[in-house]
Amino acid sequence: MAHIELNNGLPGIAGLKQYRPETAGPLSALAEVLLRGPNTLSRGERELIAAYVSSQNECVFCTSAHSAFAAAQLPEGMPLVDKVRVSPERAPISPKLRALLAIAGAVQRSGLEVTTDLVAAAREAGATDVEIHDTVLIAAAFCMFNRYVDGLGTFAPDNPALYAAQAELVLAHGYAPAA
Amino acid sequence: MAHIELNNGLPGIAGLKQYRPETAGPLSALAEVLLRGPNTLSRGERELIAAYVSSQNECVFCTSAHSAFAAAQLPEGMPLVDKVRVSPERAPISPKLRALLAIAGAVQRSGLEVTTDLVAAAREAGATDVEIHDTVLIAAAFCMFNRYVDGLGTFAPDNPALYAAQAELVLAHGYAPAA
Repeated sequence: MAHIELNNGLPGIAGLKQYRPETAGPLSALAEVLLRGPNTLSRGERELIAAYVSSQNECVFCTSAHSAFAAAQLPEGMPLVDKVRVSPERAPISPKLRALLAIAGAVQRSGLEVTTDLVAAAREAGATDVEIHDTVLIAAAFCMFNRYVDGLGTFAPDNPALYAAQAELVLAHGYAPAA
Repeated sequence: MAHIELNNGLPGIAGLKQYRPETAGPLSALAEVLLRGPNTLSRGERELIAAYVSSQNECVFCTSAHSAFAAAQLPEGMPLVDKVRVSPERAPISPKLRALLAIAGAVQRSGLEVTTDLVAAAREAGATDVEIHDTVLIAAAFCMFNRYVDGLGTFAPDNPALYAAQAELVLAHGYAPAA
């Protein structure tokens, strides 16, 4: 049971968005531009960063959801997502994505952990400044979303099929609430 | 020097917002509704939560800015902000605000640190469900803003007068970017 009475049966952030539409608007708009807006990082790559950070924060709902959203948008699907969550260093991904995930992992611990060496390594692997910017902000944003979802004690369904169904909705309609 | 070339001389989040207007919009809208929107928590109280979390995250820019914004909107001014940053337990604030700051402090560490006891204590001190919700989200949001500002290595001016001047602008015009 959530720490507050949401008056809806929705899990994770869905229940919070319905409870407080005033904050749901900017939160959905932020997720939409970061994870689905025009970008040289693919939508699957950006969801992979979100899933990895959520996993490091041990947020079951966000890890399950964004792993499903990443898997639905990457040719290698959930097996690759699982490998990245276990070890970005050893997963079969591009050197650029590996370097960006190292930055995301640092951000998860603290913004102060991002070093000039980590940034230089990402740049050497081909990352642009905008890609580095967006990686930092995606990682930071999930440090918010994870704390929001768990700090209010929302529930996370166990059934993977529910997250896969949610992935289809996100792929079709995005994160922005209906106008 | 920031980790990426922002092509502007602006400090902290100001430089990042100008660099990437696509994400600046939702970020400003979120700050506006959380810190200045209609609420039973005063604007000064909400800025105090933001300053306290930023201080716990050791983010110099956000701590300086939101301490100034809190001081400008609290009758007790900066002396109270300083006391809260040192110890919310011993600062001369209401039992309700003290209990909400304890929740914010837990969120800063991890969403999973918010216990039913912390929430029950806030409720016993008079906090409503919406106030508990907003406290969790303000604290979570500053775990994002702090990581964003420090993860990209932005600079923080030393001069307190600059933050006081920024406070006057925020009080007059808010966080939302000009339309």
